Amino acid sequence: MRTFVSVDCVIFGFDGSRLNVLLVQRQSEQYPNSGLKLPGSLIYQEEDADIAAHRVLYELTGIRKMALKQFKSFTSPRRTANPDDLKWLEYAYGNKIDRLITISYLSLCKINRRLNVISKYKTVEWCPVNRLPDMPFDHNQIVAESMEEIKQWLNDDQMVVFELLPSKFTATALRNLYEAIRQKQCDARNFHKKMINMFCVIPLDEKQANVPHRAGRLYKFDKNLYKKRMSI
Amino acid sequence: MRTFVSVDCVIFGFDGSRLNVLLVQRQSEQYPNSGLKLPGSLIYQEEDADIAAHRVLYELTGIRKMALKQFKSFTSPRRTANPDDLKWLEYAYGNKIDRLITISYLSLCKINRRLNVISKYKTVEWCPVNRLPDMPFDHNQIVAESMEEIKQWLNDDQMVVFELLPSKFTATALRNLYEAIRQKQCDARNFHKKMINMFCVIPLDEKQANVPHRAGRLYKFDKNLYKKRMSI
Repeated sequence: MRTFVSVDCVIFGFDGSRLNVLLVQRQSEQYPNSGLKLPGSLIYQEEDADIAAHRVLYELTGIRKMALKQFKSFTSPRRTANPDDLKWLEYAYGNKIDRLITISYLSLCKINRRLNVISKYKTVEWCPVNRLPDMPFDHNQIVAESMEEIKQWLNDDQMVVFELLPSKFTATALRNLYEAIRQKQCDARNFHKKMINMFCVIPLDEKQANVPHRAGRLYKFDKNLYKKRMSI
Repeated sequence: MRTFVSVDCVIFGFDGSRLNVLLVQRQSEQYPNSGLKLPGSLIYQEEDADIAAHRVLYELTGIRKMALKQFKSFTSPRRTANPDDLKWLEYAYGNKIDRLITISYLSLCKINRRLNVISKYKTVEWCPVNRLPDMPFDHNQIVAESMEEIKQWLNDDQMVVFELLPSKFTATALRNLYEAIRQKQCDARNFHKKMINMFCVIPLDEKQANVPHRAGRLYKFDKNLYKKRMSI
């Protein structure tokens, strides 16, 4: 049995209204299933999984040190059940492959961070998590389980939302993000009331610029206040 | 490159004073490094990692459904750097192996649960986490990282300690366990004061039986009260 091990990266980004995942398009057009997928790679001989995942992210973003957390291994023998997926895989890596196990990594990324794609991919795009295309292997399942994982992170530590927001943000953006991760709506007025206390969010004397709608007040997160409160 | 993927199980058990890990002794005596190690196995062709890990536990304990959580993959190319480890591995599995990646699983087990070992192992024993032998591969590192992980679980949810305790326990046992996971001592008097409130622990009208020292009062954990308090 020729078993290969890969890494796949689930990179979340928030655009102010929707939660997105970074997807790439496979290079080869000659295989039927050459649509969008999670960025990933086989682990090279001299690499461990962390190094391979950082390499994938570097090729996508030009950033060498991105916060990246090993999430879960996906190991079902059925992962490569689709012959199209397997054909593409063997074409891309030039190997006969019987089984492909993948180790998934999660990253929360500020979406306004400029991406310097230096990779082999034809397309790199942010795709809303609730409008994902059908992806090869079990990539849809990997994203679904990753969503559950960051929901758990949010339960354990509210601070996680601020890794996805720019340093200044509107109350609406914070609520949208909160709802996108929790996958349920919350009452706008109640949320606003709770926001200042729960999240240690400070209103600024500043409004949004260059927006097509009424400019909203900007807020920032007070990390020191939050840490102080949590340590009690 | 012949890559193989295994699972390794870190099963924690608490004996009232010390935190232990369940170790097994390899069957083969003819190889130098045939000492204690974590229970594990290569993943069989038709299995996913979860099924393989449950199989390993079943062979060790006779229990089919044990709570088991995938923790982390260990993937360093240096895992098999010790020729003795590799020799044993190839002898045990009858395959030439270039690289061995392992997926670790964690389990918290009540140590008084009777183990029906139906496995191939010569010895199965509980070993205190602070007196582990030198184990093959990176098994010492796996246990060390697992300790950090359950410490994190305890930070996120205090209830985790009660998975390791019998239904009735002494205040000393609870404190010993808490200290073993946190890897630091805490003041006995303060701990006792906090215990009732923090942990939702109820004193019983009952004492230890058949102990060589003064019998301690027994307590139980009020799960419903705890859940109610956490949901506020």
